[in-house]
Amino acid sequence: MSKKEFVKDVTAMEDDFAQWYTDVVKKADLIDYSSVRGSMIIRPYGYALWENIKSALDRSIKETGHENIYMPLFIPESLLQKEKDHVEGFAPEVAWVTHGGDEQLQERLCVRPTSEVLFCEHYKNIIHSYRDLPKLYNQWSNVVRWEKTTRPFLRTLEFLWQEGHTCHATSEDAHEETTKMINVYANLCEDLLAIPVIKGQKTEKEKFAGANFTYTIESLMHDGKALQSGTSHHLGDGFARSFGIQYSDKDGELQYVHQTSWGFTTRIIGAMIMVHGDNRGLVIPPRVAPTQLMIVPIAQHKEGVLDFAYDLKEKLTSTVRVDIDASDKKPGWKFNEYEMKGIPLRLEVGPKDIEKGQVVLARRDTGEKLFIPLDELEAKISELLEEIQANLYNKAKQLREDKTSIAITMEEFTDTLTNKPGFIKAMWCGKNECEEKIKEETSATSRCMPFEQEGLSDKCVYCGEKARHMVYWGKAY
Amino acid sequence: MSKKEFVKDVTAMEDDFAQWYTDVVKKADLIDYSSVRGSMIIRPYGYALWENIKSALDRSIKETGHENIYMPLFIPESLLQKEKDHVEGFAPEVAWVTHGGDEQLQERLCVRPTSEVLFCEHYKNIIHSYRDLPKLYNQWSNVVRWEKTTRPFLRTLEFLWQEGHTCHATSEDAHEETTKMINVYANLCEDLLAIPVIKGQKTEKEKFAGANFTYTIESLMHDGKALQSGTSHHLGDGFARSFGIQYSDKDGELQYVHQTSWGFTTRIIGAMIMVHGDNRGLVIPPRVAPTQLMIVPIAQHKEGVLDFAYDLKEKLTSTVRVDIDASDKKPGWKFNEYEMKGIPLRLEVGPKDIEKGQVVLARRDTGEKLFIPLDELEAKISELLEEIQANLYNKAKQLREDKTSIAITMEEFTDTLTNKPGFIKAMWCGKNECEEKIKEETSATSRCMPFEQEGLSDKCVYCGEKARHMVYWGKAY
Repeated sequence: MSKKEFVKDVTAMEDDFAQWYTDVVKKADLIDYSSVRGSMIIRPYGYALWENIKSALDRSIKETGHENIYMPLFIPESLLQKEKDHVEGFAPEVAWVTHGGDEQLQERLCVRPTSEVLFCEHYKNIIHSYRDLPKLYNQWSNVVRWEKTTRPFLRTLEFLWQEGHTCHATSEDAHEETTKMINVYANLCEDLLAIPVIKGQKTEKEKFAGANFTYTIESLMHDGKALQSGTSHHLGDGFARSFGIQYSDKDGELQYVHQTSWGFTTRIIGAMIMVHGDNRGLVIPPRVAPTQLMIVPIAQHKEGVLDFAYDLKEKLTSTVRVDIDASDKKPGWKFNEYEMKGIPLRLEVGPKDIEKGQVVLARRDTGEKLFIPLDELEAKISELLEEIQANLYNKAKQLREDKTSIAITMEEFTDTLTNKPGFIKAMWCGKNECEEKIKEETSATSRCMPFEQEGLSDKCVYCGEKARHMVYWGKAY
Repeated sequence: MSKKEFVKDVTAMEDDFAQWYTDVVKKADLIDYSSVRGSMIIRPYGYALWENIKSALDRSIKETGHENIYMPLFIPESLLQKEKDHVEGFAPEVAWVTHGGDEQLQERLCVRPTSEVLFCEHYKNIIHSYRDLPKLYNQWSNVVRWEKTTRPFLRTLEFLWQEGHTCHATSEDAHEETTKMINVYANLCEDLLAIPVIKGQKTEKEKFAGANFTYTIESLMHDGKALQSGTSHHLGDGFARSFGIQYSDKDGELQYVHQTSWGFTTRIIGAMIMVHGDNRGLVIPPRVAPTQLMIVPIAQHKEGVLDFAYDLKEKLTSTVRVDIDASDKKPGWKFNEYEMKGIPLRLEVGPKDIEKGQVVLARRDTGEKLFIPLDELEAKISELLEEIQANLYNKAKQLREDKTSIAITMEEFTDTLTNKPGFIKAMWCGKNECEEKIKEETSATSRCMPFEQEGLSDKCVYCGEKARHMVYWGKAY
């Protein structure tokens, strides 16, 4: 959407993108605030979105052979400390329970920021032989990270997610799993949410605390900032050694298992908003939309209109997730409301339409209005929903391409960041110092070393020494 | 099951019911322990049961017009204290977060034991007019109660549940909702889990902290102890007054809303175990069973057996939730394992069966073995699953009737408790002192005043004064 439009109480995204985001999540009834600092209430409309995402992802997780389990919310301090890198990464941002009722606890419990150590303790109990491998577990849960500054969906004290934790006989098997699950996430983003992603590997600096390496999918928001949308970690045998998770192989030799973990969170709803939304509010891709089509009767006080509209709703139930607003609010109010909520299609039907045997369909993504004869309605709706889904993906991909630049020198790098915010592709020598300097000087971070590498130049964009990787850089949420 | 049978590593229920329970939950791979005191790991088999229960209950909750939302995990101390009775009831058993990272919090946060106060705060924000009513919200979440002694599923520091919270214009509307939801729970127990329940009202002493009154469903375990299986509370306008939740009615007058809350938890899995289980392990009702039929190939090394068994599995997938164990373990081991796991039907097929065009079906509930011609197999399986479901319900109902007694005097009351543990129906005057004395002297508590009242006598079983209610009494989990 290039034209700045005015919608009551919503800041235009060109004026203040952060404020636009906050306005939209509130006005579209996705969230509310509470007296719990940094936490959010996920309201019915927001939660219905999460339920649709969760149900699609859960299906993929099960189809790839994983089983769901549930681990405790609390982690004793001593257990968290068992893996050195891991505790260093997480201890500064955990919430500590020190009292149960009136009693002070002998050992503090942290509220899980992630559950690697609990899974490891369990795996040590249940894995004995190569016959027990692989173990492919997943958990749906809430986790807590004590963030200073928070924003709905993007960064909150508590969030909802799934965390997969698996054990394998070999490092190769674990590697295969790490790849498989980043692909599951990428497909979910692209197919369900119409969000195009870059798949790649995090640098050493940006990888998960305790991992061998981390795969990530990165998406680009409307304002040119990147958002890490899902990660999959090859943990190697580091946790296995700290926790003593061993199996006897076919020759009876004791071996350490090789592990992975991978997570996907409610933050993806923030991505969906910032990738597809516009100045009229949310734009929800049809496949994930709780309501795909909203019926708004016109002149509903006239005889026959409401009956007709309700019959239509009944008839469409098998084709589409349909709802009707027959409240006494004005049609104009309803149009605004369901545009704000990003419902893919609006169906208008009034006395004249009934006379002519037609209805009006309005697309949320393009604003286009179509007059559809009743006998073509169901086919046309299915067709339009597919078209909208594809259009949103293509628009998002085009936007990302428009906002992706190449920088050969640091001058180009900083210029681009100022004048054309987005992804910057630039070569890197692989040294931590260069990465840190770039962050220091530009506040852009390395997003990933994409699986699809390109040789843009022979030299590191920062130090000029031999380049090893092409890296996507950007400012990030 | 009347005959005491020996199963390796499982205590007979007649010898030690509590130990039998603990053995079964472990041996059937429902749970594992961790280093987190009083918490449990819900393993894949246990979690699959919960997923089936959750999905059926979620459907009923949505069909009755409720929407799912998600509230924060933490509650600031000052918010918890807003409703006097409520905080008195819960404060002694909450876990307190006092530190975030290295920083001491200015105000302690409790980990939600239940979320009334969070819902109330939100309702105050979003309810303004009679048009906003009713508000029918539900949440699926984990909650924490700092229990001293814990047992898997029955009483744990943390458990999973759903909690419904609704607001209505009138007390009558709230009453209707309270009734509707206790019926939803009762139907779920009876239809899905084959657990017969008594519906009734809790006494003042046993009602929810802060409620007007509490409806409950009570079930009876194999050992004669009762288990509260779901509760629905009419909260009146007490919370509304404490939190200032008001709406303007059709005449523009400000009114307080009337509220309900209702909850159903993972503890029901404990009930299912103790109602249907026997000395060979779990007995899972077919409708909730993650696997309804397990195929065990016999002499699977012989040519054609495994192919045949896998083809059978493929073919049965549309009829039944089916799995196959083609591991190299002995059939006898497999028989024990799937009996322990309570899988409703076992299908055995070996070379001779293939020759004869038949298979063997073994019922978990009765132990009966049936030879079924292949062309009747699908019809027979569906028929048997229905039969098993009905049989389990009928057996449980018979057991409850056998273990339900009437006491007119305290002598009969105490005699019955010793000689025939179970429900005792006895009249009560309605006075708190009598109820407390009975508990003190017998350790039996009032379970409920059933909706179906009977006039067993005119006098209170304890004080002999005028009886007002027939009450179910019993020792309880």
